[in-house]
Amino acid sequence: MTDDASLAQRLLDGDRRALARGISLVEDDDPQGWALVREVYPRTGSATVVGITGAPGSGKSTLIAALVRNRREAERTVAVLSIDPSSPFSQGALLGDRIRLTEHFLDRGVFIRSMANRGALGGLSEATLQAALLMDAAGRDDVLLETVGVGQAEVDVIDHADTVVLVLVPGSGDSVQALKAGVMEIPDIIVVNKADHPLTETMVREIRGTLSLAPQEGWRVPIVKTQATRGEGVEELVEKMLAHREHLEAQGTLSERRRRNLRNEVLALATSRLRRKLEAEMREDPGFQELIDEVVERRLDPATAAGRILEREGVTSPEVRT
Amino acid sequence: MTDDASLAQRLLDGDRRALARGISLVEDDDPQGWALVREVYPRTGSATVVGITGAPGSGKSTLIAALVRNRREAERTVAVLSIDPSSPFSQGALLGDRIRLTEHFLDRGVFIRSMANRGALGGLSEATLQAALLMDAAGRDDVLLETVGVGQAEVDVIDHADTVVLVLVPGSGDSVQALKAGVMEIPDIIVVNKADHPLTETMVREIRGTLSLAPQEGWRVPIVKTQATRGEGVEELVEKMLAHREHLEAQGTLSERRRRNLRNEVLALATSRLRRKLEAEMREDPGFQELIDEVVERRLDPATAAGRILEREGVTSPEVRT
Repeated sequence: MTDDASLAQRLLDGDRRALARGISLVEDDDPQGWALVREVYPRTGSATVVGITGAPGSGKSTLIAALVRNRREAERTVAVLSIDPSSPFSQGALLGDRIRLTEHFLDRGVFIRSMANRGALGGLSEATLQAALLMDAAGRDDVLLETVGVGQAEVDVIDHADTVVLVLVPGSGDSVQALKAGVMEIPDIIVVNKADHPLTETMVREIRGTLSLAPQEGWRVPIVKTQATRGEGVEELVEKMLAHREHLEAQGTLSERRRRNLRNEVLALATSRLRRKLEAEMREDPGFQELIDEVVERRLDPATAAGRILEREGVTSPEVRT
Repeated sequence: MTDDASLAQRLLDGDRRALARGISLVEDDDPQGWALVREVYPRTGSATVVGITGAPGSGKSTLIAALVRNRREAERTVAVLSIDPSSPFSQGALLGDRIRLTEHFLDRGVFIRSMANRGALGGLSEATLQAALLMDAAGRDDVLLETVGVGQAEVDVIDHADTVVLVLVPGSGDSVQALKAGVMEIPDIIVVNKADHPLTETMVREIRGTLSLAPQEGWRVPIVKTQATRGEGVEELVEKMLAHREHLEAQGTLSERRRRNLRNEVLALATSRLRRKLEAEMREDPGFQELIDEVVERRLDPATAAGRILEREGVTSPEVRT
């Protein structure tokens, strides 16, 4: 406990190694990690948390690198948390044209960390949320969350952000179609990256048309054209991010949004924890195996089996009994 | 109960109105719906269940219409369950070039149903699974599940299928990137629809390259080029679907896959049911509100709050206590 206390203190003092250690504990599902988050949680809430989502290959890592540079020039400290397994941040980012990311590895004002995709999405998003809280507690002014977000899989993670930026590239047909069809949630800011592509204007028009049909209350979603590799459009993107933040504060919706986010996080943590518990028990407990056998043999339907499992866990679920 | 019994009997006899009524009950979360599934469940397991996934605009509805025609010519009965809110199946499919779908509405061997996206994905996938079971019990030879599946959001639903078909179109950059990056799971069959597009061959090569890097045990994922509007390639697709089915049966992996699917379904049902219960209680129970207040005021961290909620539910979760 003395160790934990000093780890917490060092983390709160902004010590990078303490932060790295804390995130590893959380990632390893170590009880000390949970205890650490509990201890430092009262000191969270000051960071500006921005989620940056987009398909693999949309160039969001390069864009994040450019954002980091911009934020550093404004003398803000930054933490990047990548949960895109295909991101250069996740892969070391040391070679070729990725060299531009490495400049930040030497800057003490920048903390970069990726989370391995541990298959079980529940486990991953749990750990990610805790890691983001640790970055916040460590006094980082800006926390950038990089997620894949082709669909809504990472929705729990992105839920943690005050501002959500969706990065598209000309040719990323699926995401635009998904936006258009109302299948994907409208983000706060849309970036069209690689904007030197000849189809850029067509795409911008298409997105604008889609947005004009969506219900927009107060905040009008801006479309920012960038060429992240050359840093073009990054300043405008930062302006829009700040404008969105101001909008939230002016409307008093920041606290409302955070309340909703935290509520969703608590729910997600509770359910994913139960799911992991059930999965573990299912592997070990012959009673569970028998239940599944009955389902496989079509003697017991899945919903009734689910109800019985919840009952075994002590959860009363009246709606199961009919 | 007499009513229920006769509804079950009529459904098992293949009565379309009984099937429609049963699905409505399930969709409305009516206890009679759950009871109905429980009653007919022993008679499920005979249908060939195929999941057809792809971004909005990939033409999967048109492809499904062509598949339905093909399967009808082979004198098989078909049920289509669409959970893509942007699908023509979901939107009535009565006008313009959608007329081709309507031919099936008059055919008693075809049953088409869409599920409204009810926001809560948990609730939706629960209802979808139950609806698919009812279609199976009603004696449909083929059950086709249409899902959006840009990402992994519908993963619980697609889990129900024996064979998963991913529909891409030239220009659907995001999905190919997601496959390439290992972010999206490799399906059993890949369709490149709208194959009159000049970039078709480039895309096929790209997919082939991606597949060659993925671990493939036994089954080699075929790439089928189609032009669904003209029915081209549909026969080949059906052949591949049958071949995949045969492969599963020959390897004895069909029962293994179904066991895994059913196990995942039971888990998903248990957790989504708990989540819905928690959400309902959270709205009504002042104790929950206070817990969230504490989290919002940074006095209690989200993970501890989640643990307390599970404890309130009677779930012992030792890993919460540290």
